[in-house]
Amino acid sequence: MDWLEMDMENCSVQRTLDLVGEKWTLLILREALNGVHRFADFHEHLGASEPILADRLKKLVSAGILQVRPYQDDGQRTRHEYRLTEKGLELYPAIVSLMQWGDKYLADPEGASVSIEHKACGHAVRVVVQCTHDGDIIAARDARSFPGPGARKLISD
Amino acid sequence: MDWLEMDMENCSVQRTLDLVGEKWTLLILREALNGVHRFADFHEHLGASEPILADRLKKLVSAGILQVRPYQDDGQRTRHEYRLTEKGLELYPAIVSLMQWGDKYLADPEGASVSIEHKACGHAVRVVVQCTHDGDIIAARDARSFPGPGARKLISD
Repeated sequence: MDWLEMDMENCSVQRTLDLVGEKWTLLILREALNGVHRFADFHEHLGASEPILADRLKKLVSAGILQVRPYQDDGQRTRHEYRLTEKGLELYPAIVSLMQWGDKYLADPEGASVSIEHKACGHAVRVVVQCTHDGDIIAARDARSFPGPGARKLISD
Repeated sequence: MDWLEMDMENCSVQRTLDLVGEKWTLLILREALNGVHRFADFHEHLGASEPILADRLKKLVSAGILQVRPYQDDGQRTRHEYRLTEKGLELYPAIVSLMQWGDKYLADPEGASVSIEHKACGHAVRVVVQCTHDGDIIAARDARSFPGPGARKLISD
């Protein structure tokens, strides 16, 4: 098949990027994965303006990636915090793969600013592309892409 | 440690996004992984304007993610094509992880528009976060993030 004859309008990479590819959006997800849940904390730690932050949080909630939960500190009014849903938690490999590449190619001489360990044994984790059959680790050149069940051909003029 | 006390300026997720997080940039990488190498083909298949495409290709070449190689079709002048470097090929898990999430949550009812198989055995591939010690598949809640060797504390006022 010629890749150039395929319509990429329904490509899942593109659709995922449309949803979470914007810089602040993905940084909010990084913060949420690291236990940040409150508007004031996102604002302070990320340095995003309040209107931008409110907009991105709203987008993530309406996409079902974050959910809003009420909380109340002593003597304060009820506020809301933002928790990852299961759908949001499943973006974990995407975030870790971006981090892993950056750690290798863009880190300061001292090394990575964040490390991740497997809670159960304390060893480091890594992201890999893996064959579902034999468990082999797959590099780009070990794999072949082809049109899936939802593929569409471009309509010629 | 309190995550909010850490300076995120040198976070590798953020640095990687600064380099390849822009939509057209990552879509160029998707095309290159699928065997598209020529300016005219990128232009036609992506629908990006020529100035935007030229700018993003230049950025990827100067980052060492793509390299320029001359080619010549019969009777034509020498032109250039864009090939992924080793550094570029290593973005493969990041692209596949975005695609995998999109296939699950954003695909059309017919299914994924693109499938990927292991050339050697023909079975599907998947992206996983894996423990480097015991090979366990790691979900977000099985892992713990902590300051790495390049971590910096935020300087208080």
